Amino acid sequence: MKLSFSPASPFARKVRIAAIELGLIDKIEFVPATVAPGTPNDEYSKITPLKKLPVLILDNGDVVLDSYVIVEYLDELAGGGKLIPASGAVRWKVKSDHSLLQGMLDSMLLCRYERMVRPKELHWTAWADDHWKRAWNGMAHFENHPEMLARPFDISQIALVCVLGYADFRFADCGWQKAYPKLNAFHQKMLERPSVKISVPPSA
Amino acid sequence: MKLSFSPASPFARKVRIAAIELGLIDKIEFVPATVAPGTPNDEYSKITPLKKLPVLILDNGDVVLDSYVIVEYLDELAGGGKLIPASGAVRWKVKSDHSLLQGMLDSMLLCRYERMVRPKELHWTAWADDHWKRAWNGMAHFENHPEMLARPFDISQIALVCVLGYADFRFADCGWQKAYPKLNAFHQKMLERPSVKISVPPSA
Repeated sequence: MKLSFSPASPFARKVRIAAIELGLIDKIEFVPATVAPGTPNDEYSKITPLKKLPVLILDNGDVVLDSYVIVEYLDELAGGGKLIPASGAVRWKVKSDHSLLQGMLDSMLLCRYERMVRPKELHWTAWADDHWKRAWNGMAHFENHPEMLARPFDISQIALVCVLGYADFRFADCGWQKAYPKLNAFHQKMLERPSVKISVPPSA
Repeated sequence: MKLSFSPASPFARKVRIAAIELGLIDKIEFVPATVAPGTPNDEYSKITPLKKLPVLILDNGDVVLDSYVIVEYLDELAGGGKLIPASGAVRWKVKSDHSLLQGMLDSMLLCRYERMVRPKELHWTAWADDHWKRAWNGMAHFENHPEMLARPFDISQIALVCVLGYADFRFADCGWQKAYPKLNAFHQKMLERPSVKISVPPSA
């Protein structure tokens, strides 16, 4: 299997952490890809019209996306029910927490594109502020519902690690560690896992 | 169960179609909600910090999101394997097709926000063009891989209906019907289904 990858992508990081935790990392060849809004990448767009990272290319050529479905696929390959509970109310809690975190990452990327990629004279503050608020309020949600931090290791915890790591990477001065002490303690503990530590984004 | 809803949201439409097809529509109370980027909605943000439609609120207060996970939840409630194949290679094809279509909708909404919501003097053409291209190339992908159009009715076909309906609703002059005749024939056929016909977005 091949995975399109960039060490800066929080979505690709999620899959990398999952693959390590599931014992599948050696079965995946990481293929570097570079994508940016407003910049064409015709070769990669042939693989996925969305021009987003990551996608998993199976040995038969089938393309699996997005990062969530890739983790589901790998989880099933590893026997099922490892990172996504197979049944019960907790299954929907984990999936819904993951969706919230995925949306927070989407908003953080939109914020970054607005503030750091779009030409400065075209910035719309209300848009960037709105999307930052979604990410920030999302962190508050998990600080105030810390029961998810104590669950067995799952895909939503991986996604939270990716959100917090992306905040450190692209919004280093936002102050989430002080604002959200429970998330900070969780993040410190998660950094003891080799899969989390090895995948920390490079210095910006 | 309660579903936050707007007839203009293609994501809410997806859930509505699925609920009708699964025979669960009478168990869901539709609750109108209005969200727009750059405009606060503090009450709704308490339910979901992402401020996005739809979410499903269960009778015990648990919140299920996003539209994909809601359909998964309803599918399981209806016995499982109805709109998402329960196993095999087709399961990952349907899920991956759905992810692609979901990303196309995200790009179409970003395009709309750029062209029709953001103040005119702040438009960045390269951004809007890039996102429109993702949606347009995604349609080309399905035109060129029409085998998905002939599968038993599934969540990715529902998502395709929502993409095409949203194109009619918000990008009426884009000409997808002429450019993609197989998708047009599929859409016409789908409009014979009561669930699809009743959920067509209102006139813009």
